[in-house]
Amino acid sequence: MLSHHREIQIEWGDCDPFGIVFFPRYFEYFDACTNALFHHALGFPKAEMLKRFQIAGIPLVQASCNFHVPSSFGDVVKVESRVLKWGTSSFTVQHRLFRGETLAVEGLEKRVWTVHIPGDPSKAKSHPIPKEVIEKFA
Amino acid sequence: MLSHHREIQIEWGDCDPFGIVFFPRYFEYFDACTNALFHHALGFPKAEMLKRFQIAGIPLVQASCNFHVPSSFGDVVKVESRVLKWGTSSFTVQHRLFRGETLAVEGLEKRVWTVHIPGDPSKAKSHPIPKEVIEKFA
Amino acid sequence: MLSHHREIQIEWGDCDPFGIVFFPRYFEYFDACTNALFHHALGFPKAEMLKRFQIAGIPLVQASCNFHVPSSFGDVVKVESRVLKWGTSSFTVQHRLFRGETLAVEGLEKRVWTVHIPGDPSKAKSHPIPKEVIEKFA
Amino acid sequence: MLSHHREIQIEWGDCDPFGIVFFPRYFEYFDACTNALFHHALGFPKAEMLKRFQIAGIPLVQASCNFHVPSSFGDVVKVESRVLKWGTSSFTVQHRLFRGETLAVEGLEKRVWTVHIPGDPSKAKSHPIPKEVIEKFA
Repeated sequence: MLSHHREIQIEWGDCDPFGIVFFPRYFEYFDACTNALFHHALGFPKAEMLKRFQIAGIPLVQASCNFHVPSSFGDVVKVESRVLKWGTSSFTVQHRLFRGETLAVEGLEKRVWTVHIPGDPSKAKSHPIPKEVIEKFA
Repeated sequence: MLSHHREIQIEWGDCDPFGIVFFPRYFEYFDACTNALFHHALGFPKAEMLKRFQIAGIPLVQASCNFHVPSSFGDVVKVESRVLKWGTSSFTVQHRLFRGETLAVEGLEKRVWTVHIPGDPSKAKSHPIPKEVIEKFA
Repeated sequence: MLSHHREIQIEWGDCDPFGIVFFPRYFEYFDACTNALFHHALGFPKAEMLKRFQIAGIPLVQASCNFHVPSSFGDVVKVESRVLKWGTSSFTVQHRLFRGETLAVEGLEKRVWTVHIPGDPSKAKSHPIPKEVIEKFA
Repeated sequence: MLSHHREIQIEWGDCDPFGIVFFPRYFEYFDACTNALFHHALGFPKAEMLKRFQIAGIPLVQASCNFHVPSSFGDVVKVESRVLKWGTSSFTVQHRLFRGETLAVEGLEKRVWTVHIPGDPSKAKSHPIPKEVIEKFA
């Protein structure tokens, strides 16, 4: 199963008055990691992915995180991302953030392959994920 | 069980290129709602709470969200927050975000009552939640 | 000259490890205040403004801030916003953030009235600001 | 004069409904670039810098940006940062963000070398910048 690794430098502005990462930032990191995983698998970036598959996006229906160990500004952490499960039009991405050898944060995202509704660009609906996309992650 | 309501105006800068709220912003909203809930229950703000109870903070060990319906800039949504469960040193906060009458997002936060370790201001550990705090939410 | 006031509660997540507002958050506040100013003047929100005037947005060409006094989480500050100057297709918005009676931050934004280029929704160009818009701020 | 270059990948979550970088994100990028510049010059990260020089931080008194060309998600931009001017206790950092060969954004930050006030960890004041710091940027 294809996975992707990404180094993230924890910035001053990502940290709260307690001196540790403000937890919504982890969800931001993971969103960027999902995009990087798809870029890695497909060979082209998200902007290109939206055009080629004529999709509106891959919005979330569920997100969760377990925070085991805090990180602070100046830390360089590593995130390992993979698709855990493919459904018909939804899929689940797992992110594991390591601080050194320690598993610091675990995140799960359930996302939906979403296309525009013809005639109404402001609306969107789920759509079966193309087989050629899934195959790229094998 | 004490609950707190808060109106939130969805801002342009909270929304992504798809035109809907970028999902980590919901976790930011909910963090602010938890602080508002404690402010409402205790009668004083978080800064005062940290001082009076000599705590370092109430960091998260777990966070999750279910996204049912998207919101967009200009929307005014309402969040209803309550503590669902009190443990010895941890507690669970539930947030329900409504767009009109529709339940749009549901969030859960598991947080820990955390104190500084004497002699080392950069470290912290869990601590039993004072009874007087819990009683304020009855 | 029409002005608009807005109260802003400084949130935990807006503050840095030093305990004060991370400065880019002021620019976020001010962006929301500009949208609120236009909403107040025109009588309808930004989403409606984009549609009615068929504009792509009011992006910035210049932004600046002077930070006189820091604010911290729990503070409730007040922002006073007004359009200082109207050009043909650009305009300058002034924001003054008060902490109590103290002028804490002053910001200026130079923005451009921007329309889509027919046939290419991904591109945009400046366009003269409609007189009916400017008149609403008198 | 020492300068530092940094590549930044524009993320989906950094962009607004118009599809371009929400402008306060540029100030976030530049804050991280200033920290990277000091890290590069001094040879150790900001957390270490705060401890070694017993400073509270390097907060801003002024920030400004000129936005020439927008960037969008998927773009990889390059920021070139340098200290333009050293005062007694303040200094000015210049950031130039390039999209390919094009100068897309120019930013200036005026910052102050700030130390804690003995006996009151919540307050701070300006302090002359150590010569050994300035010399590292020569």
